Amino acid sequence: MTSPLAFPRGFQSAALAAGIKPSGKTDLSCVVSSAPCAWAFAGTRSTTAAACVTRNRELYAGGKAVRALVVNAGIANAATGSKGARDNLDMADALGGVMNTRTHEVLTASTGIIGHLLPMDRLLSGLEHLSDDMGTDAAPFAAAIMTTDTRPKTASATLSTGAVIVGTAKGSGMIHPDMATMFAFAFSDAGVDQDALRSAFPTIVNRTFNAVTVDGDTSTNDMAIALANGTAGEVPLEEFLAALEGVMRDLARQIAADGEGATKLLTVKVSGARTEAEALLAARTCCVSPLLKSAVHGNDPNWGRVIMAVGRSGAGVDIEAMTVRVQGVPVFAGKPLTYEAAAVSALMKAQEVVFEVNLGAGEEHGEAWGCDLSGEYVVINSEYTT
Amino acid sequence: MTSPLAFPRGFQSAALAAGIKPSGKTDLSCVVSSAPCAWAFAGTRSTTAAACVTRNRELYAGGKAVRALVVNAGIANAATGSKGARDNLDMADALGGVMNTRTHEVLTASTGIIGHLLPMDRLLSGLEHLSDDMGTDAAPFAAAIMTTDTRPKTASATLSTGAVIVGTAKGSGMIHPDMATMFAFAFSDAGVDQDALRSAFPTIVNRTFNAVTVDGDTSTNDMAIALANGTAGEVPLEEFLAALEGVMRDLARQIAADGEGATKLLTVKVSGARTEAEALLAARTCCVSPLLKSAVHGNDPNWGRVIMAVGRSGAGVDIEAMTVRVQGVPVFAGKPLTYEAAAVSALMKAQEVVFEVNLGAGEEHGEAWGCDLSGEYVVINSEYTT
Repeated sequence: MTSPLAFPRGFQSAALAAGIKPSGKTDLSCVVSSAPCAWAFAGTRSTTAAACVTRNRELYAGGKAVRALVVNAGIANAATGSKGARDNLDMADALGGVMNTRTHEVLTASTGIIGHLLPMDRLLSGLEHLSDDMGTDAAPFAAAIMTTDTRPKTASATLSTGAVIVGTAKGSGMIHPDMATMFAFAFSDAGVDQDALRSAFPTIVNRTFNAVTVDGDTSTNDMAIALANGTAGEVPLEEFLAALEGVMRDLARQIAADGEGATKLLTVKVSGARTEAEALLAARTCCVSPLLKSAVHGNDPNWGRVIMAVGRSGAGVDIEAMTVRVQGVPVFAGKPLTYEAAAVSALMKAQEVVFEVNLGAGEEHGEAWGCDLSGEYVVINSEYTT
Repeated sequence: MTSPLAFPRGFQSAALAAGIKPSGKTDLSCVVSSAPCAWAFAGTRSTTAAACVTRNRELYAGGKAVRALVVNAGIANAATGSKGARDNLDMADALGGVMNTRTHEVLTASTGIIGHLLPMDRLLSGLEHLSDDMGTDAAPFAAAIMTTDTRPKTASATLSTGAVIVGTAKGSGMIHPDMATMFAFAFSDAGVDQDALRSAFPTIVNRTFNAVTVDGDTSTNDMAIALANGTAGEVPLEEFLAALEGVMRDLARQIAADGEGATKLLTVKVSGARTEAEALLAARTCCVSPLLKSAVHGNDPNWGRVIMAVGRSGAGVDIEAMTVRVQGVPVFAGKPLTYEAAAVSALMKAQEVVFEVNLGAGEEHGEAWGCDLSGEYVVINSEYTT
């Protein structure tokens, strides 16, 4: 973003350094709405989900409106037992007290290392000061939710009515995100029907946020949340949902491109699938293949690794009708094609490498994103952290 | 193996360099039995399986005995269309002609780069010379089936009757094996009932060969084959199956330890699972996690990555009853435990790093193997190969 990005009408935010991150960077933040929000939520399917995910899911099932989101970075508060669950509730309760909002109207999100308890004294002390400096700039919030991210991630859309959607995300974009988490948050002043939003949200998340992860949801703390406070009035539903998907898609691509050690974005577009689910499955399996990711890093048009990953995914394929293109160049069409390997390799020296795969089995399509696998990834993740 | 390993009675083998590997190393080999063999087969579930897998599977469904196995390394003959299928059949037919064996008694196996046609002139010429130098030493065969392997892999067992089982394997042990393939071949002179062998084989493969791969089978050419020619007479079935599982398990661990760029073996033992399938799933998900593998490389006792991987696997967990040990040291028991991180890190500087996880959800157990993830892996797999 070149110009400052403001939260939509009715939202205010603050961020500060509470001393949770060893680096001393901002690590505690909130977004508060002046009006109750219609909201949608998607959380990790992990069987070891963190307390924040479990609690948000329970609130979601309750169906009531919410008004605030409090986030800490540095410690994930996952695998922390009943003490961790109490700390998570205390975090919501404390923000509610400061913001004059009821506890059950406050969503929580924690990201960072797994298996450590939150420093509740510092966190609660920080929460008391959050209200001192509330504003509408989205940048401090986008920065405070980061862990291993190298840059903040924001995206926005303006609707025909003048309502806006502002999205922020964090995540390392790797296969199994470390520092535990991908977050995608979307805030809007549009008025939308909560039931309609909730009904559409799983598909939007599946096409965007989940297309940079494996198996839908991978980590203990992953979550995507959309909040709409209606301050700008009603918006046509289809327009709102399309814009929301666009914002989430933009964020998903930013997460992928900022993968740990990444030097470029990997995009896999699958068509000719029997179902959209199979198209997404095949595309994701390509995007997480360490072998394909390594080949992308080395500008190697080794399309055999695409054939392998697609086959592994289990998606239906008619291999005689199957085609593969690398950066637009056809390399396989039921059999190996002749192509200039050196020229295709040169084309792969780009910010984004695109593989287009037609499975030859149907009419559906889907897309997923990842990044190359570099030696730097291993360096980042083998450092002694505990 | 310190002393030469001989194939069981009734088996002979040969290997030579046919010019398929650019390195000029041996790349064409066979094992031939003087008597028809009871056999069992497990092949990749990839939807883009290579011609050798497809043909062996068809022969397996036919139920007839076989007598020979011909293997080439360097080119996988996968994604090669109808020409590739004909080449695969010609390879079996040519070996059958040389060895005076019918085509449908010859199994084929190809490993190497995907999407290239076999150099049939050189391969057929090589096959004509394979019979010149048949012998019983297993070493030339174990070497000729290698691709990125850094060392040959063999294992053996001697049964109470004097019958033996000799196993050989190849494979890089990485998540998605490059050079396309893991092979595990077991040869025995024991007499076993083919139906009983076939009935038990899937479970044996699932506990061993598949425990170094993801989702059962990953590549286009993966296969495991057991051949028993009965030359040494009948053997108690239970004893034979237990010995076969032991040989396959030994080979699986060797494959994992020889992963591309690997410096150590990663073993994950899961207990307290609701089913064996869930125990194996949880163990495998840990063994393929790039984050856990990176932590193992850096001797980092970051057990939070185990919690994350287990959660991601979908295996049933009672997190309050869950426990984790690293190199025998308890680090988690429903909540984080206090331990000497530096001491555990020192323990991890070993040839084998063992995580023991009790899911607290049942009575079943399972084990999987992998290796650490090093920067060398990326170097190997980003080289320009096409």
